[in-house]
Amino acid sequence: MIIILKQSASKKDAETILDEIEKTGLKPLFLPGIERIVIGAIGDERLLNEKQFESFPQVQEVKPVLSPYKLVSREFNNARTIVKIGDVAFGGDEFITIAGPCAVENSLQMNKAAAAVKSAGAKVLRGGAFKPRTSPYSFQGLGVEGLKILSQVSREFHMPAVTEVVEVADIDAVEQYADAFQVGARNMQNFRLLTELGQRRKPVILKRGFAAKVEDLLLAAEYIVSEGNPNVILCERGIRTFETCTRNTLDLNAVPYLKSRSHLPVIVDPSHGTGVRDLVAPMAFASAACGADGLIIEVHPDPKSALSDGMQSLTPEQFATMMKDLKRFVLAANRVMA
Amino acid sequence: MIIILKQSASKKDAETILDEIEKTGLKPLFLPGIERIVIGAIGDERLLNEKQFESFPQVQEVKPVLSPYKLVSREFNNARTIVKIGDVAFGGDEFITIAGPCAVENSLQMNKAAAAVKSAGAKVLRGGAFKPRTSPYSFQGLGVEGLKILSQVSREFHMPAVTEVVEVADIDAVEQYADAFQVGARNMQNFRLLTELGQRRKPVILKRGFAAKVEDLLLAAEYIVSEGNPNVILCERGIRTFETCTRNTLDLNAVPYLKSRSHLPVIVDPSHGTGVRDLVAPMAFASAACGADGLIIEVHPDPKSALSDGMQSLTPEQFATMMKDLKRFVLAANRVMA
Amino acid sequence: MIIILKQSASKKDAETILDEIEKTGLKPLFLPGIERIVIGAIGDERLLNEKQFESFPQVQEVKPVLSPYKLVSREFNNARTIVKIGDVAFGGDEFITIAGPCAVENSLQMNKAAAAVKSAGAKVLRGGAFKPRTSPYSFQGLGVEGLKILSQVSREFHMPAVTEVVEVADIDAVEQYADAFQVGARNMQNFRLLTELGQRRKPVILKRGFAAKVEDLLLAAEYIVSEGNPNVILCERGIRTFETCTRNTLDLNAVPYLKSRSHLPVIVDPSHGTGVRDLVAPMAFASAACGADGLIIEVHPDPKSALSDGMQSLTPEQFATMMKDLKRFVLAANRVMA
Amino acid sequence: MIIILKQSASKKDAETILDEIEKTGLKPLFLPGIERIVIGAIGDERLLNEKQFESFPQVQEVKPVLSPYKLVSREFNNARTIVKIGDVAFGGDEFITIAGPCAVENSLQMNKAAAAVKSAGAKVLRGGAFKPRTSPYSFQGLGVEGLKILSQVSREFHMPAVTEVVEVADIDAVEQYADAFQVGARNMQNFRLLTELGQRRKPVILKRGFAAKVEDLLLAAEYIVSEGNPNVILCERGIRTFETCTRNTLDLNAVPYLKSRSHLPVIVDPSHGTGVRDLVAPMAFASAACGADGLIIEVHPDPKSALSDGMQSLTPEQFATMMKDLKRFVLAANRVMA
Repeated sequence: MIIILKQSASKKDAETILDEIEKTGLKPLFLPGIERIVIGAIGDERLLNEKQFESFPQVQEVKPVLSPYKLVSREFNNARTIVKIGDVAFGGDEFITIAGPCAVENSLQMNKAAAAVKSAGAKVLRGGAFKPRTSPYSFQGLGVEGLKILSQVSREFHMPAVTEVVEVADIDAVEQYADAFQVGARNMQNFRLLTELGQRRKPVILKRGFAAKVEDLLLAAEYIVSEGNPNVILCERGIRTFETCTRNTLDLNAVPYLKSRSHLPVIVDPSHGTGVRDLVAPMAFASAACGADGLIIEVHPDPKSALSDGMQSLTPEQFATMMKDLKRFVLAANRVMA
Repeated sequence: MIIILKQSASKKDAETILDEIEKTGLKPLFLPGIERIVIGAIGDERLLNEKQFESFPQVQEVKPVLSPYKLVSREFNNARTIVKIGDVAFGGDEFITIAGPCAVENSLQMNKAAAAVKSAGAKVLRGGAFKPRTSPYSFQGLGVEGLKILSQVSREFHMPAVTEVVEVADIDAVEQYADAFQVGARNMQNFRLLTELGQRRKPVILKRGFAAKVEDLLLAAEYIVSEGNPNVILCERGIRTFETCTRNTLDLNAVPYLKSRSHLPVIVDPSHGTGVRDLVAPMAFASAACGADGLIIEVHPDPKSALSDGMQSLTPEQFATMMKDLKRFVLAANRVMA
Repeated sequence: MIIILKQSASKKDAETILDEIEKTGLKPLFLPGIERIVIGAIGDERLLNEKQFESFPQVQEVKPVLSPYKLVSREFNNARTIVKIGDVAFGGDEFITIAGPCAVENSLQMNKAAAAVKSAGAKVLRGGAFKPRTSPYSFQGLGVEGLKILSQVSREFHMPAVTEVVEVADIDAVEQYADAFQVGARNMQNFRLLTELGQRRKPVILKRGFAAKVEDLLLAAEYIVSEGNPNVILCERGIRTFETCTRNTLDLNAVPYLKSRSHLPVIVDPSHGTGVRDLVAPMAFASAACGADGLIIEVHPDPKSALSDGMQSLTPEQFATMMKDLKRFVLAANRVMA
Repeated sequence: MIIILKQSASKKDAETILDEIEKTGLKPLFLPGIERIVIGAIGDERLLNEKQFESFPQVQEVKPVLSPYKLVSREFNNARTIVKIGDVAFGGDEFITIAGPCAVENSLQMNKAAAAVKSAGAKVLRGGAFKPRTSPYSFQGLGVEGLKILSQVSREFHMPAVTEVVEVADIDAVEQYADAFQVGARNMQNFRLLTELGQRRKPVILKRGFAAKVEDLLLAAEYIVSEGNPNVILCERGIRTFETCTRNTLDLNAVPYLKSRSHLPVIVDPSHGTGVRDLVAPMAFASAACGADGLIIEVHPDPKSALSDGMQSLTPEQFATMMKDLKRFVLAANRVMA
């Protein structure tokens, strides 16, 4: 940790801080400059409370040297982590697509969706039973009834199922009916939820919050992994920016960045990342090209009757075309698509 | 609702949509333009599923005419809503300051903090027992133990207490020990939490999410109010932007905007909104000047030993000076400060 | 154009506005709703001054129906525009890479750079002579001397040259020595510069401003095209967001969006779009995958001695490897790379 | 400067960098940590090319210790700089308001505007002759004809005049007719323009770019001051964020931050900073409260006939009311308003 003092700081101010560092067991360093005093602390910075130094009146800035996440980092474990949802492996050589409707609406819709996405090459089925919606007047999901439909269709089509969990109290139900938990963007920093999921063993797809820095995403994953559940799949799904022609700005820079800093699998959600049906396929191709391990895509048998997110859902035909074209990009990326 | 069709849309496409509008009971309007067909729907737009129309292949864009929130709007209720925390009224003529440490650390710290902020003019005491922290390695709060300390100090100093609730399972405990719930920025769209708080009667301070539009904040408030709890206080606390010299960008524009659109009280948190101790007082003055109904400020008896947010906490002396100066701005805004 | 009146607006207020619309030659439409009056104006909205209506006291909001750009839109011209820099065609079947150092430093450096990028497959040479730099204490470019070096190396290697123009007064010099003008992100809304470039015939590579919406970029292109120069190549190069792990957030959503709305070629600059050397290649691949017509890449014979942007420059070896891998993605996108 | 090496860096890598630092005349420091090597450079960092070190393959991150601006900083000059436009002093005890229409439209409009704003207490007249407009189809200003009208009205009403300059070639004309140059947000990083203005003596109002960090604004000011013109007034006018209910997000945090880091006067433009007429007055009050030295406000005798920005322009009556109320906040801020 590097601590930069204010111009007005005295040598005595510096000594107070050097003492504090010494007390924690780290090695203090005194670096008197021409315009400023700089202080260093060598050792495990996690032993220090960064904010503590920032609140000393004579401190101008505290700059950490080490990344604040540890277990999810490549420095801790440089091998790729493989996470399995059912028998489908993420993070290995195969490029995996998860697909299905935004929300479970009824059995018929889920059956049609599952049949369509499976025949086009999707390996995992998605469908939301608990829907976080911006407006209280929008459809909020079928709840446990939706979980049951999802589970039944999942078994029928031999596709493992992924569904969102929004609340600690629902974890048991979701664990019973689904093969993986999805944590949505709005809950990426619901730390209680993360902590509880860390105590389970089923995998977690952790979506980046729409105002979360990549570092925040890695720290959210650290919450889960540090509780004992190593099965985390990171998901880039777009961030909020000033651009309004798309629903979000898909930050694909994050994909190779995350792959270089963390050993966890990384997938992309181009449906939410664009919010525009015509942009889903090109951004799916781009995701494969920049090194993602897979995709999660919204497909609805009849988007114009969808109870949520119809605007960004692909039709079964559009999805089938996309998957056919996707294979070329997956091969170009030296990955396989079964 | 205005529905703009693509250039390629035919009259038949338009008729399909006009039929759909008619089915919902709204009045459809056909507006053939020179370059595009535009369709209108007159009546309560909340009966329509906006996304549904956006997912029609021939629709380019759907533009709602009415705001999506209702109960919290001035159109619904043009009188100012007064929300009382204990016996302290927000939204009336008095400008109210809530103050205290970021986190409850121990009895002594809370006692010192309460004594300091009360004597300087704060009316409500704050202190977090459940702390959402970006890193799992940071101090997470004392939990129920912290609630008990807060409650005891609150009674001792005759100041009602506000504390954050992060999880449905904790609502009962918080309700027992505190006089108002605080929903933090990270939970502004934790809709399950909002729905449950809507079924209680104690007031809710709802902080704006750091990537939430003002409209999202009003819709989050609508979740609470539509469940039956009218006692919501909105809180601007800064949004995330590209600027890095401050922790957040305090969006004071939101204050007069919210006051013009909603009848709910609006307060400002300049501690999180700046993240920099020296900026807290000037932004507190600015908040009073642009029409806020109050403030929530972090004050710690010894910021450099604070377990969280020390960098932005005022010392008791700084807080006392700020409160003294604040009074001039409150009077200039034609409000009172007792 | 759709004009939504305030709830308090009277029928008389509406009539004033309907009269104004009629005066402009557009067809006014009166749409009395339940909660609000809505007014429509049918015809060429460019005849109306949108702001004018927004400044009527009884108007709540003005919503344009048509896009504000025209000549650059697919609605105006649905065929792909081919723009030639020298004899290199952008926007056709071939995927083109422009490469070279950020700044022209001297003859030797440019010769080495040109040799390296040409042998790896780049078709156009880049190199800045006028460098806009955030700090007055940074290297500002060699000026006309740099243009001469660029021109000589360009002829020697039979590669057309592209260089940035920052000021109207430099247009003649740049036109004399280079084959295309580059307008940098900071000048995307230097409308005087755009207008002058519209009166030349050499092509213009127009980089998106780092706070420019896609619509702003298209309007900036409209400035050039409406002055008579149809040879505009749009360039996505990253926008400014809250994310700090990369220099900019490369908005690849913009690529398929621009291609769907405009007939102009679109290229991507992953060097500035990431600011991190290791991310350049993956984002170049992603650019090809999502439909870009080409790339512009910073390559320096010795990045650690570069006078600007060394951190994001590829070495000749890294560039050669990238170009070899890129070909697979270009073919997957049904494009060719000679 | 602090240079953090990658985990994989060897002692030899460190030595290469230590040598480079020594060559520049700074004092190198070797700080071997447990997980990483950190290198320091003590002395005037402006002698180092920061990017140079960032482009070494074994360097992970370079952290400057000193701010990159110098002449505009309080560390260089801790006294408040007073900048005079005509005989009106900015940065002293008086709080100054500049007012007038967005664009000069004709003599009558300017006369009415000047009469109105002068009688309400404005000290300086504004009016644009060269208008940078997003669309080529919008009104672009009257050019030199507009300057002449502005100048004549300015003399008639004994109010110094401020107008925007968008291009080096126009500097002479603007200098002839106006008392201060205004550099608009889109030209904040038009470094050629800044450099030329640095060689004049008339004051420059430098508006913050809508994607410019506060540090970028200070560096833009440094361009002017380092050329010899110390008369720079900084202007906060809103930044671009995800929020869409206002045209920009007025970043008032920047006001006390700028005042603490720089000795230059700081004013605020709440007209552009909100884009909404009803928010101008509250944000003007907030600006005075948080320490601004003045305001620049758009006032039009008849906003609904304005050729630009009518939506955010105050009427003369609204302006007079605002100025009357403003005085209370100016006094509360211990400033005067004559």
